[in-house]
Amino acid sequence: MKLEPLKIQHDLVAWLTVAGDKIRQSLTEELQVNTKSGRNDLVTNRDKEIERFYVNQIRTYYPEARIYGEEGLGDEINDLSGLIFFVDPIDGTMNFVKQKENFATMIGVYLDGEPIVGGILDVMAQRLVVGGPQTGVMLNGRPLSKRPSLDIKDGLIGVNSRMLSENINQVTDLIRLSSGARITGSAGVEFSQVIMGKQIGYISNLSPWDVAAGWAIASALNIEAHTIAGQRPSLLKREIIIAGIPTVWQNFAKLQS
Amino acid sequence: MKLEPLKIQHDLVAWLTVAGDKIRQSLTEELQVNTKSGRNDLVTNRDKEIERFYVNQIRTYYPEARIYGEEGLGDEINDLSGLIFFVDPIDGTMNFVKQKENFATMIGVYLDGEPIVGGILDVMAQRLVVGGPQTGVMLNGRPLSKRPSLDIKDGLIGVNSRMLSENINQVTDLIRLSSGARITGSAGVEFSQVIMGKQIGYISNLSPWDVAAGWAIASALNIEAHTIAGQRPSLLKREIIIAGIPTVWQNFAKLQS
Repeated sequence: MKLEPLKIQHDLVAWLTVAGDKIRQSLTEELQVNTKSGRNDLVTNRDKEIERFYVNQIRTYYPEARIYGEEGLGDEINDLSGLIFFVDPIDGTMNFVKQKENFATMIGVYLDGEPIVGGILDVMAQRLVVGGPQTGVMLNGRPLSKRPSLDIKDGLIGVNSRMLSENINQVTDLIRLSSGARITGSAGVEFSQVIMGKQIGYISNLSPWDVAAGWAIASALNIEAHTIAGQRPSLLKREIIIAGIPTVWQNFAKLQS
Repeated sequence: MKLEPLKIQHDLVAWLTVAGDKIRQSLTEELQVNTKSGRNDLVTNRDKEIERFYVNQIRTYYPEARIYGEEGLGDEINDLSGLIFFVDPIDGTMNFVKQKENFATMIGVYLDGEPIVGGILDVMAQRLVVGGPQTGVMLNGRPLSKRPSLDIKDGLIGVNSRMLSENINQVTDLIRLSSGARITGSAGVEFSQVIMGKQIGYISNLSPWDVAAGWAIASALNIEAHTIAGQRPSLLKREIIIAGIPTVWQNFAKLQS
C-alpha cells in the first residue's frame, strides 16, 4: 500500500465539509439526546448519522484502514498498527445541544501510530484547519505557519473545568503563570485555537478521538502533545494531555516536581 | 427632559455598528498595549479611541447626560441620578489582543438608576443585541423572547476563572449542579450568551461598565442580576454579580447558607 497524504487530506476536506453542511442543515430538526457515561456526557442521533457517513466513506475509499470512532460504529482498536482513521463526528456535543455553536467535527489519520493528516471543522464558524507533518497546515485553504515561541505569561490556555477547580496536576498554578484560562467545551475548537495561535495551550482529559486530529495537525507547527508522564499520547485510552507550544509543557513539567 | 428609549436604542445601534467597523478595520494596524491594575488588565490605544468616539457622540446628542467610561474619558460618577451612559469601548481586551475575537463593545443607559436601554456588539461575530424593558430586545434586528425557566442541571454557566478555581462563594459547587462551566474572557460576550439562551447564567467580579449594558437588556427577558447579598447591582463599584435565569440565583443563594 502506497501512502498518499495529500490524497487523504483532500478527502478529509471533502468529507468534513459535507458533514458540516449536513449538521448545519439539520439544526432546525428535532434532536434525540441521550446520555452515555454520565448526565453531562451526551450523544444525539446526529452524532451517529455523521459517524455512519464517515465510516461509509472510509470503508469505500480506504478499505485497508481501521476506524476508531467515538460512537463505536468503527472497529475495536487495541493497537496502532497500520492505517487508522480516528473519527469524532460531533466534538462538544453539550455545546451542540445547548449553544448550537462552538462544536467541531474531526478526523485524524495515523500510520503505525505516526501522524499523517488531521482535519478539524468548527462547524458554525466554518473554520476548517487541515494538514500534517508532510503536507503543511491550512486554514480554509490558506497556509498557517509554525507558532512562535512565547513566554508562559503571554498566552491564554484552554483547560478542563474540573482540572482548574481541583488544581489537578497543578493546572491552576500553571494558569496563574499565564495570561488566563479559557473553557470552550470542545477539544476540537480548543486545538484549533492553539493551531491558529489564539491560545498557547490546551490541557484536558481526552479520549483518542479527541486528540488524534489536533495532534496530527499541530505536530507540523511546533506544537507538542504530552501525557503527564511526558510521553506521546497513547491514542488507545482516555488520558490527560498537555498540548501547546514547548513553553507550556516546560512550565507544566516544572510544576510537577 | 422627555426620555425617548427608542431614540436612544436607535443611536446605540448606529454608534456600536460604527465602532465595530472601526475596530475591525484597524485589526491589521499596530496596537499599543499597556497594563492597568495588573499584568493581565490590558488597555490599548484602540480602547481609548473608541471611548473618545462614544463620548463625542453622547456629548453631542445627549448633552444633559453623564458618562461612566472604562477608560476615564467621561465623568466622575458617585451617584446614579439623572441620565447616565455606561461605556465599555472594548470589553475583553485580553481576547482582543491575543485572539482578535471574542470581545465586545457596549453601552448601557440608565435614568436615576433604572435600566432604559443597553447594546452589546460581539465585534467579530457581528452579533448586536440591543433593547430594554420598554423597547423589547433584538438580535441583529430580530426579536428575542423571554428566556424559559430551566433546571440548573440543564444549562451552562459562564464563570470567572478565579472564582471557579478557589470555589469563591461556592461557585464551583454551583457549577457541579449545572451542565458545566464556560470561560470566555468577556463580560459582554457572556451576557450575550445568556440573552441568546446559550447559557443560563454568568457569574463574575464586574465593574459598572461590565454590567450596565447586559443588565439593561437582560432585565427585559426574565434574566436577573444580583449581588452576593441579593441586591441589585450598585453600578458604582466593582462587585460580584450573579446574572441569569431565576434558577441560577435560587441555587446560588441556597449554597451560601
